[in-house]
Amino acid sequence: MMNENFEQYVARYKQLIDETSVKEIEQLNIPDNLKASMIYSLQAGGKRIRPLLLFASYQAYEEDIDKVLLTAVALEMIHTYSLIHDDLPAMDDDDLRRGKPTNHKVYDEATAILAGDALLTYSFELITSDVHLSDREKVQTARLLSQASGPAGMVAGQLLDMAYEGENVDLQTLENIHELKTGQLLTFAIEIGAYLAGAPNEDLKQLKTFAYYLGLIFQVQDDILDVTGDPDQIGKPIGSDADNDKSTYPQLLGLDGAQKQKETYKQKAKKALAQTSVEQPFLSALTHYVTERNH
Amino acid sequence: MMNENFEQYVARYKQLIDETSVKEIEQLNIPDNLKASMIYSLQAGGKRIRPLLLFASYQAYEEDIDKVLLTAVALEMIHTYSLIHDDLPAMDDDDLRRGKPTNHKVYDEATAILAGDALLTYSFELITSDVHLSDREKVQTARLLSQASGPAGMVAGQLLDMAYEGENVDLQTLENIHELKTGQLLTFAIEIGAYLAGAPNEDLKQLKTFAYYLGLIFQVQDDILDVTGDPDQIGKPIGSDADNDKSTYPQLLGLDGAQKQKETYKQKAKKALAQTSVEQPFLSALTHYVTERNH
Repeated sequence: MMNENFEQYVARYKQLIDETSVKEIEQLNIPDNLKASMIYSLQAGGKRIRPLLLFASYQAYEEDIDKVLLTAVALEMIHTYSLIHDDLPAMDDDDLRRGKPTNHKVYDEATAILAGDALLTYSFELITSDVHLSDREKVQTARLLSQASGPAGMVAGQLLDMAYEGENVDLQTLENIHELKTGQLLTFAIEIGAYLAGAPNEDLKQLKTFAYYLGLIFQVQDDILDVTGDPDQIGKPIGSDADNDKSTYPQLLGLDGAQKQKETYKQKAKKALAQTSVEQPFLSALTHYVTERNH
Repeated sequence: MMNENFEQYVARYKQLIDETSVKEIEQLNIPDNLKASMIYSLQAGGKRIRPLLLFASYQAYEEDIDKVLLTAVALEMIHTYSLIHDDLPAMDDDDLRRGKPTNHKVYDEATAILAGDALLTYSFELITSDVHLSDREKVQTARLLSQASGPAGMVAGQLLDMAYEGENVDLQTLENIHELKTGQLLTFAIEIGAYLAGAPNEDLKQLKTFAYYLGLIFQVQDDILDVTGDPDQIGKPIGSDADNDKSTYPQLLGLDGAQKQKETYKQKAKKALAQTSVEQPFLSALTHYVTERNH
């Protein structure tokens, strides 16, 4: 499955996101340290999973990703803002992210807060100024993105994730927290890619089910890597979830149980994907990539 | 000018904004403390200058403000988010705002950061879901709001305001900081009100000039009140700008000079307003209100 072509595909689009997101900030007429702080976190070596999922979903229906490039960049900016704010001393208080000092360690806390605010706000400017989209498409894109990342989405997830630190949660609560904190943006990526490609409504429904399980797979694998991973690969110390009193799948189900749960999610994701009206080669490959990744 | 009718007008629309903004958050299915924190700051007794300006600008052309109510609420949410973040310990480190404990003093810092993020994000959901606006109007509203409040607007203003603390700045730098930090959202209020009422382009241009000077009047008066005001009325101690090493008009020009500068701005604002195609009774009255306010 992970053949040369797929790896090239990932590398090519990852580079496109890296370059375009930085270029969009570079051209802004804004204070130097604000610009540097925004670019620092955009360049901090993310896996670009969300843009890749958006492209993959779009490309099941349409070939040329020009139309959705800036939407993917806006999505990555929202993800990046959330990481900057989550790492703040008042939040998860992390000094390292992907092996590099976090934004507020390089700049100061005030600049990090403002860089996050700026990336969040600018993502909506990117979408609403995007000449590749019709007004109707801009509205739908901005609306779904604000829902996925707002008080009933990602923000609620981060709040609940902190609120449940040190508490024993059941599987349903754990799934709910992750669905909000991570799943909603992954679902946005997949849904908006297909929507902007003109996919039929029935496909959008199946793709949202697929995205729900993919998000949970993503999180189980994160939790498993926190126990079994290589710290050089994942860019943070092993066992940091336990140190932060986070509830995890291995803690709740054991390592074997977590692996089995991942298989269950994977089967459900595959089933939903198989029920769309077209072949989904890139989403299938990305599911494998997310399931088996080592960082 | 400040007759009974105008005061009633202000009170009526202020109440409408108070009620609608809280109602919009009340109906969300979100964690309790996130909701409480968002509502706390929305209810903290703001003057609602921005929504009032939006209504006033709209009503020079159209009577019924139903169409722009949610846009005004979204704008007030953006303003409220900026106050919550500006008050944080890493930023201006304020314990009181309008005589009440700031958000992070009542809740915790993490919740305050997330409440700000949530208000910012939700404002774009409000606009893009607003059934009173066409797709084209939603796009224009969200685009102008993101520009006014983003990295080249309000966020840059807050960053520069902190960066210049303790430094002697000239009048041009002071105007530039205030134009970004406060002026851009005031301009958005006035421009979008007229735009959504279908005002002619030439009027939009004059109204933007008017808004620029009104923003500066607003700030001179803030600075003057910080020297001469009644602490019970303005909700913070007198002289707090000097304590925070902020550059102000009275410090730069003396108190008399600041008063004279306010008059200069007022004449320029009046001149621009007089050049629109219609009578602007509410904007004229609000200019007087902003110029002479004691809190």
